[in-house]
Amino acid sequence: MTARPQLTPVLRRLRLARISANPSRQAALEQSLPCPVARRFSTSRPRPFHTTPAVSAKAKFTSETYPDIKRDSRFAQLTGEHVGYFRSLLGSESAVIDGVTNDRAADDIEPFNSDWMRKYRGHCKLVLKPGSTEEVSKILKYCNDNMLAVVPQGGNTGLVGGSVPVFDEIVISMSRMNQIIEFDEVSGTLVAEAGCILEVVDQFLASKGYIFPLDLGAKGSCHIGGNVSTNAGGLRLLRYGSLHGTVLGIEAVLADGTVVDDLCKLRKNNTGYDLKQLFIGAEGTIGIITKVSIHCPQRSPAQNVAFFGLESFDKVQQAFREAKGQLSEILSAFELMDEGSQALVRQVTKNESPLEGRYPFYCLIETSGSNADHDSEKLQAFLEDVMEKGIVSDGTLAQDETQIKSLWTWREGITEALSHLGGTYKYDVSIPLKELYQLVEDTRARVDAAGLLGDTDEYPVRAVVGYGHMGDANLHLNVSTRRFDERVEKVLEPFVYEWIAARQGSISAEHGLGVMKKKFIGYSRNPTIVGLMKNIKNTFDPNGILNPYKYL
Amino acid sequence: MTARPQLTPVLRRLRLARISANPSRQAALEQSLPCPVARRFSTSRPRPFHTTPAVSAKAKFTSETYPDIKRDSRFAQLTGEHVGYFRSLLGSESAVIDGVTNDRAADDIEPFNSDWMRKYRGHCKLVLKPGSTEEVSKILKYCNDNMLAVVPQGGNTGLVGGSVPVFDEIVISMSRMNQIIEFDEVSGTLVAEAGCILEVVDQFLASKGYIFPLDLGAKGSCHIGGNVSTNAGGLRLLRYGSLHGTVLGIEAVLADGTVVDDLCKLRKNNTGYDLKQLFIGAEGTIGIITKVSIHCPQRSPAQNVAFFGLESFDKVQQAFREAKGQLSEILSAFELMDEGSQALVRQVTKNESPLEGRYPFYCLIETSGSNADHDSEKLQAFLEDVMEKGIVSDGTLAQDETQIKSLWTWREGITEALSHLGGTYKYDVSIPLKELYQLVEDTRARVDAAGLLGDTDEYPVRAVVGYGHMGDANLHLNVSTRRFDERVEKVLEPFVYEWIAARQGSISAEHGLGVMKKKFIGYSRNPTIVGLMKNIKNTFDPNGILNPYKYL
Repeated sequence: MTARPQLTPVLRRLRLARISANPSRQAALEQSLPCPVARRFSTSRPRPFHTTPAVSAKAKFTSETYPDIKRDSRFAQLTGEHVGYFRSLLGSESAVIDGVTNDRAADDIEPFNSDWMRKYRGHCKLVLKPGSTEEVSKILKYCNDNMLAVVPQGGNTGLVGGSVPVFDEIVISMSRMNQIIEFDEVSGTLVAEAGCILEVVDQFLASKGYIFPLDLGAKGSCHIGGNVSTNAGGLRLLRYGSLHGTVLGIEAVLADGTVVDDLCKLRKNNTGYDLKQLFIGAEGTIGIITKVSIHCPQRSPAQNVAFFGLESFDKVQQAFREAKGQLSEILSAFELMDEGSQALVRQVTKNESPLEGRYPFYCLIETSGSNADHDSEKLQAFLEDVMEKGIVSDGTLAQDETQIKSLWTWREGITEALSHLGGTYKYDVSIPLKELYQLVEDTRARVDAAGLLGDTDEYPVRAVVGYGHMGDANLHLNVSTRRFDERVEKVLEPFVYEWIAARQGSISAEHGLGVMKKKFIGYSRNPTIVGLMKNIKNTFDPNGILNPYKYL
Repeated sequence: MTARPQLTPVLRRLRLARISANPSRQAALEQSLPCPVARRFSTSRPRPFHTTPAVSAKAKFTSETYPDIKRDSRFAQLTGEHVGYFRSLLGSESAVIDGVTNDRAADDIEPFNSDWMRKYRGHCKLVLKPGSTEEVSKILKYCNDNMLAVVPQGGNTGLVGGSVPVFDEIVISMSRMNQIIEFDEVSGTLVAEAGCILEVVDQFLASKGYIFPLDLGAKGSCHIGGNVSTNAGGLRLLRYGSLHGTVLGIEAVLADGTVVDDLCKLRKNNTGYDLKQLFIGAEGTIGIITKVSIHCPQRSPAQNVAFFGLESFDKVQQAFREAKGQLSEILSAFELMDEGSQALVRQVTKNESPLEGRYPFYCLIETSGSNADHDSEKLQAFLEDVMEKGIVSDGTLAQDETQIKSLWTWREGITEALSHLGGTYKYDVSIPLKELYQLVEDTRARVDAAGLLGDTDEYPVRAVVGYGHMGDANLHLNVSTRRFDERVEKVLEPFVYEWIAARQGSISAEHGLGVMKKKFIGYSRNPTIVGLMKNIKNTFDPNGILNPYKYL
């Protein structure tokens, strides 16, 4: 891209509207950006991000990484007799992967034993793939009667080790329960089995003019049952709200095999406690979700994306406030990135930023609506207004689908860029908006004060950066390291968790608890609430066979 | 209004756009409609609707209407000693209404003993008005220790007898806990005490450019704590979703006085079971909600309302599908009325319909958006399209706030019109959309076949009509009677409930269970789920002191 002259504020404003009329600028923009097949639109599994670089070798066992976790001796050891029962129950050869009586099955079981980040690894020797709710029910009844622990597994795309075993728990893979059962084109109510892949369901809905009210990077692999079980947040929450509002009903199987048929297809149903809500985000600890009924909104035919630079976090907040006011019903994303995170993307991709200048903060705004002309008019008016008021310093507006995808890569490419640079300490947190970015600044200052942060190889920490879903007050704090250094973790923890707890934030905004955050729940939940949660767990799963060693 | 000529389809279409350019037509429209101060915008308590005409005399005791309900002998009788404790605890004279030691307090207690429909009436002798969560906690601890039953009461605007005592339960009125605690103008998060009146909160939010994500007829009296406790649905659900999605956190006091501080202000928080969801719609049976944290959307500056006539319920469904597609993000209400219900409004109000012709069905569409020009353009395009396709037969578009209110009265005036005509059997139900109106037709046919329906005085039933929130698949089936006749109830029940159960509908879409529908829960929930609900109740309130004789 050729050097761009410094534009005056007025010219900058004009530039926003002019991009489409300037083919060479448009072409330059396209060239300057990474591959248009951005992660967001990819059907493949997302790249790993974790505290150690990805390795092709097998991961360390979770039982070694967490030596404090001991196998619960109440659970029975799997025998050939158990396997025989499951074989006779499930019939099909492919529905049982038996490593109990057949040592050669280890390789087939390995993908179910490890998470995709290769950070968690269990000792599972038996994988079951039920094809119906009735089979799930019979499996669980047998397991409960025989004290066999189980781990429900969807697409295994989780980030906290919740979907893989720790010891020898049986994996119950939901992958064969992947049928869309019904869709009502008038009401938008979809009923589908838990093992449906999110993207497959969304593509089906697209053909009907509807959209799944959840979108996330792992959409090509994750299951909708897993999404509901982990209360996935993702990219559309700002617009369509949480699954607690959109899920209308579930069918689930309890630990003792009882089928809970709460597969309501209605938006209003005030007949007793809304029990399905407990299963949303329970990470498979009180039952296995087998079917989901969900309200799907109309798909918006028009999408626009703008990307702009701002001088301070205070201005980011002002821009957010203005965007909500002026774009209101068409605003579908408001994403935040700091300059540190964008510098890392530039460093790794060698691409040039969509904006000529450097700003402490960048925001990406997406609108989705039913009328492209109306939306463009609103977005342009908004951008001109915020530039005129000095809230936004510079901005650009995507003119077609390719540019939309390209702009998104500057937000969604951060994770991948970081993974190329070494290990990263990642915190997925939520903090009241006013102090959202302060966590990054305070953490950076602390790492720096400890002499750990610098530009040269002698410093273990390369950068402390922040980005995330501003619209949901969801920050991803990332500490990029050059190598493992135990001083770094000591400086970060429990500092980060204590900082969040002091502000009544959440130590897990959308990734859940799993193994990783089980012991940190006290930073976001008081003992009274944790006590009530344990009551719930004991009520639903008195033997504790469902997804043990995790969550609470 | 003068007689209007029959318009051709093309002219009809033009009329939609022409109303505003024709002042005399506009004035005529205004004159033709009822008082512009519609119930929807009223601050007063809504008029009663029930199965017997409103009477100024005291209602029959619930214990007489429902002789099967017996006082639970485990509960203690109130004594002067108990009253003394509460007096010393609450201090202020006005915080205790004592009918235990003072017979003359009966009149002061009566409003807390009876619901506004005068359909339910208890024998309460003590009303407590705590001013803080700590006081609620101490009251409940004392009651639990002494086996004193309580009924939490908000604005007492419920429709199923849930907020008044049956026997001598103590009423805990939340009316003194009415403070707005904080509002974050960037995120839109509001924290307020449970006793805040909905309309007061909404007016506060309006001054900040925000809106409460719930609206209903009783807004001038109902409390937000009561709204959350009953999972109120109302008029904005189509647009903003249910309280299960918008409520971010609650503070509640359990039966034993334990304070559950789950007053999260974040949209994302995946740290354990989402316990607050159990309290939403629990009707005060597992705890008393003392504070609420809720996500409030941006208030839309532009509103439009259209009213149109259709030839069949199939066309109503087509119109709804088209409205969702074309109006998408600005659609905020889609209401249904049949000709029977509109005929009753015309009969009572003597007003002329907004449309010249008579149609089997009428719909009211409301849009709310950030740009009035854009919204008008979308709505006009939509109306022209559905008229051209023959989906809608005729329609009119409100041109100002007065006309908007006037059009709404044709939907919201139905309840009041019915109340002037005698007793009405009312069913608030939800049914999958395709069969929504079939319930009205089948019920009408059944009543007719029994020889009970007719235009003259010899028939006890005047009309069987249907209307409701089409967008939420929420139907109000109303059977308007001339006098009490036990044959009518026998023809209606359990027929209506069985009809709904066979279609997996809900026997209480938004009004809850209370006393009225406690015994009918089995029509919408299977025994497994009811059993789990009872486990929950026992876990949270083992002595059963919270709102007994109701719900489950």
